[in-house]
Amino acid sequence: MQTNYDFTNAPDRSKTDSIKWDVEPGELPMSLADMDFQTAPEIIAAMKEKINLKAFGYEWPGAAYFNAVADWYDKEHSHRPDPDWMIFTTGVVPAISSIVRRVSHLGDNILVQEPVYNVFYNSIENNGRHVLASDLHFTGENYQIDWQDLEQKLALPLTTLMIFCNPHNPIGKVWTKQEVQKIADLCLKHHVVLLSDEIHGDLIRTGKDYTPAFAVNGVSRENIISLVSPSKTFNVAALHAATVIIPNDNLREIVNRGLNSDELAEPNLLAIPGTIAAYTEGQSWRQALIAQLNDNFTYATNFIAKNLPELKVITGDATYLMWLDVQQVSHNSAELAQFLRQETGLIVSPGNIYRGNGADFLRINLACPLAMVQDGLQRLSDGIKKYQSNKKSSK
Amino acid sequence: MQTNYDFTNAPDRSKTDSIKWDVEPGELPMSLADMDFQTAPEIIAAMKEKINLKAFGYEWPGAAYFNAVADWYDKEHSHRPDPDWMIFTTGVVPAISSIVRRVSHLGDNILVQEPVYNVFYNSIENNGRHVLASDLHFTGENYQIDWQDLEQKLALPLTTLMIFCNPHNPIGKVWTKQEVQKIADLCLKHHVVLLSDEIHGDLIRTGKDYTPAFAVNGVSRENIISLVSPSKTFNVAALHAATVIIPNDNLREIVNRGLNSDELAEPNLLAIPGTIAAYTEGQSWRQALIAQLNDNFTYATNFIAKNLPELKVITGDATYLMWLDVQQVSHNSAELAQFLRQETGLIVSPGNIYRGNGADFLRINLACPLAMVQDGLQRLSDGIKKYQSNKKSSK
Repeated sequence: MQTNYDFTNAPDRSKTDSIKWDVEPGELPMSLADMDFQTAPEIIAAMKEKINLKAFGYEWPGAAYFNAVADWYDKEHSHRPDPDWMIFTTGVVPAISSIVRRVSHLGDNILVQEPVYNVFYNSIENNGRHVLASDLHFTGENYQIDWQDLEQKLALPLTTLMIFCNPHNPIGKVWTKQEVQKIADLCLKHHVVLLSDEIHGDLIRTGKDYTPAFAVNGVSRENIISLVSPSKTFNVAALHAATVIIPNDNLREIVNRGLNSDELAEPNLLAIPGTIAAYTEGQSWRQALIAQLNDNFTYATNFIAKNLPELKVITGDATYLMWLDVQQVSHNSAELAQFLRQETGLIVSPGNIYRGNGADFLRINLACPLAMVQDGLQRLSDGIKKYQSNKKSSK
Repeated sequence: MQTNYDFTNAPDRSKTDSIKWDVEPGELPMSLADMDFQTAPEIIAAMKEKINLKAFGYEWPGAAYFNAVADWYDKEHSHRPDPDWMIFTTGVVPAISSIVRRVSHLGDNILVQEPVYNVFYNSIENNGRHVLASDLHFTGENYQIDWQDLEQKLALPLTTLMIFCNPHNPIGKVWTKQEVQKIADLCLKHHVVLLSDEIHGDLIRTGKDYTPAFAVNGVSRENIISLVSPSKTFNVAALHAATVIIPNDNLREIVNRGLNSDELAEPNLLAIPGTIAAYTEGQSWRQALIAQLNDNFTYATNFIAKNLPELKVITGDATYLMWLDVQQVSHNSAELAQFLRQETGLIVSPGNIYRGNGADFLRINLACPLAMVQDGLQRLSDGIKKYQSNKKSSK
């Protein structure tokens, strides 16, 4: 694909306030899920235009914002949520925490499918709720839902909310339309509100598109809260902009009240124009990004097959995160990740933080220029070999 | 004062997402507390520079941010808070709500001094606490604290938090050093945490400077939470940046935990550079702003004395908000404000929303170009005369 977009030069964030790049000299962070690409130039232009207004008082999102969200899902994902279903919020994670507080009660079970995005656990446990896991079943090649276990746990009287990761981080799985529908139907049947984190929904690299939870059929839709944001897609986590989509009026009012009380409903000065630019002008940039991510994944997959055959790439069609089965090397991914950082400067996420069977895995962020991917994989290869040779000599 | 700053041309926010300017054509909003001035050019420049970074992942404020806050209070207010006392937060109101939840308990009394900033009531009541008012005593000329009443109410076992407005919105009063100290001492004596909203602290137009609560003497300081922000001073409410200042380690950790759980501790992409620019380069702009506000207040005060002698300006040395005693015209400021909007298009804040004796008052925002102040006062004069003549003819 020919474009004018630059996916080669990573902005130097080493002396900024970036959390990802708060590292020692020579270290290479491939952990935290933001990208080392420049965002779409259309977004930069919209931000600059807004700054030229020069007065930055209190704001409220208007129809242009909500229509931009609706049109994006219509054009990019073939399902148009009604703008009336939407609430602006400062982020997906803030909204999850607020919804946990507003929709469930102290001591309730909140169902998740482990291994899953670790911050879900904070939102649940910091608010005095219990994590109830229906672990995804690992076949050795991919992950599957244990439907019987899932339904049993949804049926427990204290299970009131399920946090669904659609598509699923860290395993990169795109749930089928049938799976999304079945989860929604089971939640409805057992009076469990379904909260769907769809922050990676725009990052389907290959295969069929994902199914937004708001697009399910029938009355199950009335029981669903979907969370979307341009933050992962366009590398604008610090834009602090996300949208809550709730078809049911009553549920939406409950959540809206919570977001307002929790002070998570007001946009900062860039949130509205940045999101509108992303969703109305970001189509071709997203296509170019996905092409680049596919190049990176192809390179990484081939490199690992050739140089690290003891590792297995367990990566679905979604996200820029590679989920790497390291169990032939270690069942202690925390120790392995620490060793890699110490010996090679490569920083990856140890899979144990996602719980479930995560201790056998590493998560590697491939959303960076190809040269950085190459550097990271060489470090991974060097580090794994050194780790194995240390293990052998210590036996 | 000669400056290159522009306090004459108000940015046109009529077709933006501005809440203040979401009005009918021809209406003039002088209600919501943001300004119709362009912010300091130094802040605009810093924002543009940040946007040129082009990658906007997760951020965390570093030493440069906290030092900028400390240095500003040192240079501008003669008291330097220790950077180690500080926590970044997305706003003063979000922090108040979070602190109400974290420091007090369900059903507690939270003491305020009415009439006071109406959003305090939301933070208290939305979180299931009770507003306990020690009303400020109105002498006919200004407001004073009823110390006996205040102490009796602080001494109640269910009073656990006091929200102090320093300087005080909407009456514009700058509390003396002795008053701030005495309140801090009484709070300590009665085991009440003192939460001081200092968002108007940079807007002392005349007289002695204000005393930041963190600057009190003795052990009382260990019991104080101060909230500061460049948002009012520099017209950057939508920057979403504020700082919590807590000298005591234990209290600070409690509040820090709450802000993090409530997802109010992460900066958006402009919050850090915008604040640093304001606090390190904004000195002369602030002086120019205050000179302009004084011109506006002088004009308004003279206009009212000449044309509306039945109104009384009860305005302290602080804020850009004029507190106007209208009791000779109406004891129902809500009705009067509605009449003014309907008949003249002038939008002001009815004093009743601040409770206490607010029903006898209007609050008028004078932070706009002088031409707009003149327009507003003419509308006020026309409206008040029409209101009086209607009243007379209906008798």
